[in-house]
Amino acid sequence: MAEPHRISHDDLLTRIETIFTRAGVRADSAKAVARVIAAGERDNCKSHGIYRIEGCLRVLAAGKVEPDAVPELHDSGTAVIEVDARGGFANPAFYAARQALADRARKTGIAALVIRDCLHFSALWHDVEALAEDGLASLSMCPSYAFVAPAGGKEPLLGTNPIAFGWPRPGAHPYVFDFATSVAARGEIELHRRAGKPIPEGWAVDRDGQPTTDPEVALNGAMLTFGGHKGSAISTMVELLAGAMLGEFMSKEALDFMGGASLLPRHGALILALDPHVFAARSGRDPIAEGEKLLTAIGAQGARLPSERRFAARERALRDGIPLTDAELAQLDRFEAMGLAAVAE
Amino acid sequence: MAEPHRISHDDLLTRIETIFTRAGVRADSAKAVARVIAAGERDNCKSHGIYRIEGCLRVLAAGKVEPDAVPELHDSGTAVIEVDARGGFANPAFYAARQALADRARKTGIAALVIRDCLHFSALWHDVEALAEDGLASLSMCPSYAFVAPAGGKEPLLGTNPIAFGWPRPGAHPYVFDFATSVAARGEIELHRRAGKPIPEGWAVDRDGQPTTDPEVALNGAMLTFGGHKGSAISTMVELLAGAMLGEFMSKEALDFMGGASLLPRHGALILALDPHVFAARSGRDPIAEGEKLLTAIGAQGARLPSERRFAARERALRDGIPLTDAELAQLDRFEAMGLAAVAE
Repeated sequence: MAEPHRISHDDLLTRIETIFTRAGVRADSAKAVARVIAAGERDNCKSHGIYRIEGCLRVLAAGKVEPDAVPELHDSGTAVIEVDARGGFANPAFYAARQALADRARKTGIAALVIRDCLHFSALWHDVEALAEDGLASLSMCPSYAFVAPAGGKEPLLGTNPIAFGWPRPGAHPYVFDFATSVAARGEIELHRRAGKPIPEGWAVDRDGQPTTDPEVALNGAMLTFGGHKGSAISTMVELLAGAMLGEFMSKEALDFMGGASLLPRHGALILALDPHVFAARSGRDPIAEGEKLLTAIGAQGARLPSERRFAARERALRDGIPLTDAELAQLDRFEAMGLAAVAE
Repeated sequence: MAEPHRISHDDLLTRIETIFTRAGVRADSAKAVARVIAAGERDNCKSHGIYRIEGCLRVLAAGKVEPDAVPELHDSGTAVIEVDARGGFANPAFYAARQALADRARKTGIAALVIRDCLHFSALWHDVEALAEDGLASLSMCPSYAFVAPAGGKEPLLGTNPIAFGWPRPGAHPYVFDFATSVAARGEIELHRRAGKPIPEGWAVDRDGQPTTDPEVALNGAMLTFGGHKGSAISTMVELLAGAMLGEFMSKEALDFMGGASLLPRHGALILALDPHVFAARSGRDPIAEGEKLLTAIGAQGARLPSERRFAARERALRDGIPLTDAELAQLDRFEAMGLAAVAE
């Protein structure tokens, strides 16, 4: 294998931004979308890195995301702030509301952000990390596409429904987890299918709800949640809180709306932000210092904190540049030169 | 086996209330504690039913819970309401704050209740069911005693850290889940030890962090969370949000404070309440009707919703009475007659 090229994070950011502006996306949105894609690549989350550009361009080409949508902030001064992405990408909507959300959480202790009607393709850790930078704890969740059966069931009703949590740490990367509530990603099953390899037990069921290790049968059946009935319960909660409660799509409706899963999903998202200092005030304790006792003790016994690998990749990338292959660089060139024509059928 | 005796829910409630008032517990607290214990028995949650009376009496006898503590409500009009249990039971503190929490959630969309310094022994579903009756979605969590190792670790740092969620359903029992984030209850490992049976793989590790199926080794080692690193991340979140963030004990400190696990734990608790109608308002949709689409579809494919078994037991109990054995009735008699002397060493 040839030595990969190395590109600086800033250069990659600029290139992705250019791709999206040339594809007709409003400057602010292009910047926000480029930011999360470059961050994914920087953190070696390949599935949320430049790999996502093509998917975004395809939704743009299909006219299923508004390239020039300006997020609309609705803030009536309560603990619930809303931002309507108006059919645009989720990321610019989040950034448009981030300051208001953080300010409100600091004032009232807890605040919620509702993101409406957005094209959602990025990992949730961006949002909870940003809020941790603001000194806030946060919890973020959203539905996706209905590929997952509830525990004991057989028909896909639930999405892979990610859930993310962030907690600020002084002088260190925040405590962040971000995972799908499905036991595996759909892409992993597809990779097994292509390789002609069985999938592990517990990943999926066939159309009759029977366990299967055949990836083809799994893709036509339903995926399962992590953690059995407990994970299924959490995934259902995500549908209710980040779908039904907001009056936005749940995973089944999102799939129906897009007419299949070939395009990235459109739905809403829910982010809760909590100010630990407000919650702890009456105790006289420093909540962040208390949290450190646990987090350092977890590290001290040799257990890995979630996101540790990602943060290590980030440090390497910021120091040495982001490694990209010839094919990846060629694809960036192509997207930059051809715009939406690059993804025309 | 002899036919069990049947006692009505109201009669059982009165008997438990009498036991606690005779044990010196303030009338309002005795009522609140009796209510959750009778409800546990009614729902056939034997581990949270009258089995718990002895544990409560033992903490009272040890002077580790304040029998006459009057919960102190602190409400400064923000989205965070606090109630200080002042070393008393958690349940009267929750009831003292329930109305304020529900009112605030309806006004601001989301509100949090911090319960401080409480003796916590009951299941969390009581609280989320009560809030569902008020038309609110809610999420409740608390630390416990440090018996559980983080994923990849070996020393117990996390509690069994339960998490519960409630969602209102029209004309039906609410959608409620309530589970420990540990893969099994500590009591189940103890039962395996007594029966001389190995525990299933994945329940626990030995002191070196190696998997074990020996219940004795497991009890001296550490339990594991459900769902691998994902469950471990969620359990860590519970420590941070319901321990560190509140300035209340995390599970390790709770264990140190009580000087061992023979008594029920004292710590805080966090409950978030959300008004779906506030969140959905701008969408023009009915969030409860939307939620029904998912919940009825889960039922229609033959999958069981969490708590279904419990609700079925409740319906039987309210119709036919609550079945109790001779031994259980004799124990109620004894506690009623002897008070705290019944649990003297």
